[in-house]
Amino acid sequence: MDEPIPVSIDHLARLHPADLADELQRLPTEEAQDVLQQLPRPLAARVVDELEHEQVAELVARFSPARLAGLLQELPPDGAADLIGELDPERRRETLNQLAPDKAAPIRELLRYPEDSAGGIMSNRFIALRADDTVQQCQAALRGRADHRLEDVTYLYATDDQRRLVGIVSLRDLVFSQPHSRIGDVMNRDVRFIRADADQEEIARQFEHYHYLGLPVLDQDGRLVGVVRGSDALEVAKEEATEDMQLMVGLSGEERALTPWRKSVGKRLPWLYVNLLTAFMAAGVVAFFEDTIARWTALAIFLPIVAGQGGNAGMQTLTVIIRDMALGELEPGDGRKALLKEVVLAMINGLAIGLVVGAVGWLWKGDFRLGAVACAAMLLNQVAAAMSGVMIPFGLKFMKVDPALASSIFVTTVTDVAGFFFFLGLGYLALTWMGW
Amino acid sequence: MDEPIPVSIDHLARLHPADLADELQRLPTEEAQDVLQQLPRPLAARVVDELEHEQVAELVARFSPARLAGLLQELPPDGAADLIGELDPERRRETLNQLAPDKAAPIRELLRYPEDSAGGIMSNRFIALRADDTVQQCQAALRGRADHRLEDVTYLYATDDQRRLVGIVSLRDLVFSQPHSRIGDVMNRDVRFIRADADQEEIARQFEHYHYLGLPVLDQDGRLVGVVRGSDALEVAKEEATEDMQLMVGLSGEERALTPWRKSVGKRLPWLYVNLLTAFMAAGVVAFFEDTIARWTALAIFLPIVAGQGGNAGMQTLTVIIRDMALGELEPGDGRKALLKEVVLAMINGLAIGLVVGAVGWLWKGDFRLGAVACAAMLLNQVAAAMSGVMIPFGLKFMKVDPALASSIFVTTVTDVAGFFFFLGLGYLALTWMGW
Repeated sequence: MDEPIPVSIDHLARLHPADLADELQRLPTEEAQDVLQQLPRPLAARVVDELEHEQVAELVARFSPARLAGLLQELPPDGAADLIGELDPERRRETLNQLAPDKAAPIRELLRYPEDSAGGIMSNRFIALRADDTVQQCQAALRGRADHRLEDVTYLYATDDQRRLVGIVSLRDLVFSQPHSRIGDVMNRDVRFIRADADQEEIARQFEHYHYLGLPVLDQDGRLVGVVRGSDALEVAKEEATEDMQLMVGLSGEERALTPWRKSVGKRLPWLYVNLLTAFMAAGVVAFFEDTIARWTALAIFLPIVAGQGGNAGMQTLTVIIRDMALGELEPGDGRKALLKEVVLAMINGLAIGLVVGAVGWLWKGDFRLGAVACAAMLLNQVAAAMSGVMIPFGLKFMKVDPALASSIFVTTVTDVAGFFFFLGLGYLALTWMGW
Repeated sequence: MDEPIPVSIDHLARLHPADLADELQRLPTEEAQDVLQQLPRPLAARVVDELEHEQVAELVARFSPARLAGLLQELPPDGAADLIGELDPERRRETLNQLAPDKAAPIRELLRYPEDSAGGIMSNRFIALRADDTVQQCQAALRGRADHRLEDVTYLYATDDQRRLVGIVSLRDLVFSQPHSRIGDVMNRDVRFIRADADQEEIARQFEHYHYLGLPVLDQDGRLVGVVRGSDALEVAKEEATEDMQLMVGLSGEERALTPWRKSVGKRLPWLYVNLLTAFMAAGVVAFFEDTIARWTALAIFLPIVAGQGGNAGMQTLTVIIRDMALGELEPGDGRKALLKEVVLAMINGLAIGLVVGAVGWLWKGDFRLGAVACAAMLLNQVAAAMSGVMIPFGLKFMKVDPALASSIFVTTVTDVAGFFFFLGLGYLALTWMGW
């Protein structure tokens, strides 16, 4: 796999655009740029539409504004807006100016919405009908539109003269209705929609919940401005769902295995420093009991066990909570129920593990006190783990921060600090009260 | 939220079935069972179709086989098969026997496929056309089928007389083609499909990659047996994507925040015991150096910092890899590239953190050796973390196990053992060579 295999344009041009995009991602940047330049422009556009925006920005970096505009010409406005959104402001302006005004206008409109809002992921190519038109008139009008981007259309939208959405017609209704029926009589008036400024996470949730194939997007005034397709929602759902995994451990949510290390350093190191700061807090607890350890070094052996088991249990709790939040399955009041459940669970697990650790400590070092201290500290730390695993994500959410954000760092801080404190504190008491 | 609010059936019956299903989940089991019994049967069926299978099994637990059969009558075969799949074999047989043979047959057929395969999630209600039919004949035939489950149909499938798939027709093609054209001339022969025994994770990947709205499912002989809809794929994608989060930390992938603690104990405790076993391995390293700690207790303070930072960095690497695997973005050869990247990154991060820890160790305890040992151990452990974060998921995958399975436990074992060993080993050498 080390030697780059020479790429034949003919071979690539026969692939599905999604597969061709995959191939391009696997080539060194310069080679991929060359391939993209050599592809027929409509194919290049479809490939660009499949690539992630960041990658496209890199691939077209050496394109002249005119050449870039030529490519954009072939893209649907939402794809073009995504690409232009990645350019720096200077280049963005130059490129937009190269486009014909009627091509540039819908792109400019889409660029007004944040990237991760409904407006940012919607397409503004949709078929809007008038409620007074007949089914036959609509069929005739639609027949005239030979646009491959409409291939997958499932719903059509009926609007009034203010462009406000009044109803929805499935393509199936249009096929099976009498030619002279009015759209207004065929359409479904109970329309579900989403606002253009809604967060993309909300969209994924709605699609999953209601099994939509497409969802109309309305602006502040109720005007239809676009449509989010099911495939867009699928992509969002997967991105959002897996993003939490990264946020939990202090990553940006955007890092990939082959993200260049120069980029990764800047994103990971800050959180490692945060973790270091919290580790010093935990170390401070150990330092506070340094004399105790000096008198009873066996404590140092069991210290990481108590803390580590707490960290693991805390991560289990945290992960269950974060996932339920991501899947939208938690409602008000569930936090308290979950806390109760986790504390009960922690007491059972804590006892189950604590007894084993205690027995090992007792038998290994022949010291009953060590076993008792380890068992009690384990139990207490499991409860601390459970409480932090529930309260930290809910706390972050309350503070309007993503509940996954670096939450594993905070949870393990609690389990380290609490674990060290319980274990060494009890060890100190055992030494003091029970004598040496 | 503590007092159960009395539920009005009239209020519930006005909700969207998906919302009604949500409400049912929030009621105590017995109350939910009552509500389900009181709903009009077609509505009850739509609600059941929205619920998770496990929950449905609980809700219908007290239904007689006849009553259950009545409900199943209203469900599409795939929904009915999902529900029946949750029953114990005895009950399953009884219930199927209550159904009319023509209702039972398609359900029995679906029950042959594993729950998490394409066959297990597909619907076997689809519209199959004959290639020789004309567009007009098809339109007339379709008009006759007044089935609300076909509302969202987007593609129609053309089969030969062996029921083998030969082409695909979008509803749009059907609308816009001349009435006398033959289906064979209108259809797209370049059909993408999936095998009935394909894993559901593969389906989600295909949908996302190619932006499908529906994907035909073929059996071994190329016969069309069902269709996977986009909304099913969305659900699978989200479940699969977030499942990894749970597997990583030793959960079943199915636990929810409000899963009863009795169930959770059985799933979490075994992994906590596995973690305990590995913790004892790490403790064994500390025990091996107990004399060194006794002579130099400051080591005990920095021990958890070195191990903890390693654990954190290892989790970052692991999460990036697992996520890319889940999103299907890693190809052969990428493992080595990722390993190289992570090692470079670990050396940079390790040095950046190591120098800080070293400086603190030196200044705090006024001991240059402590700083030097902490810095070097930190650097080495970051590299160990990076290597295990890449190699453990790839190793699990190589062994045909889910790469996420308990991987965080394995990674933190490596970072604990390696961290303790590097730090205490270097501490021992420093004591021995540099004198006290």
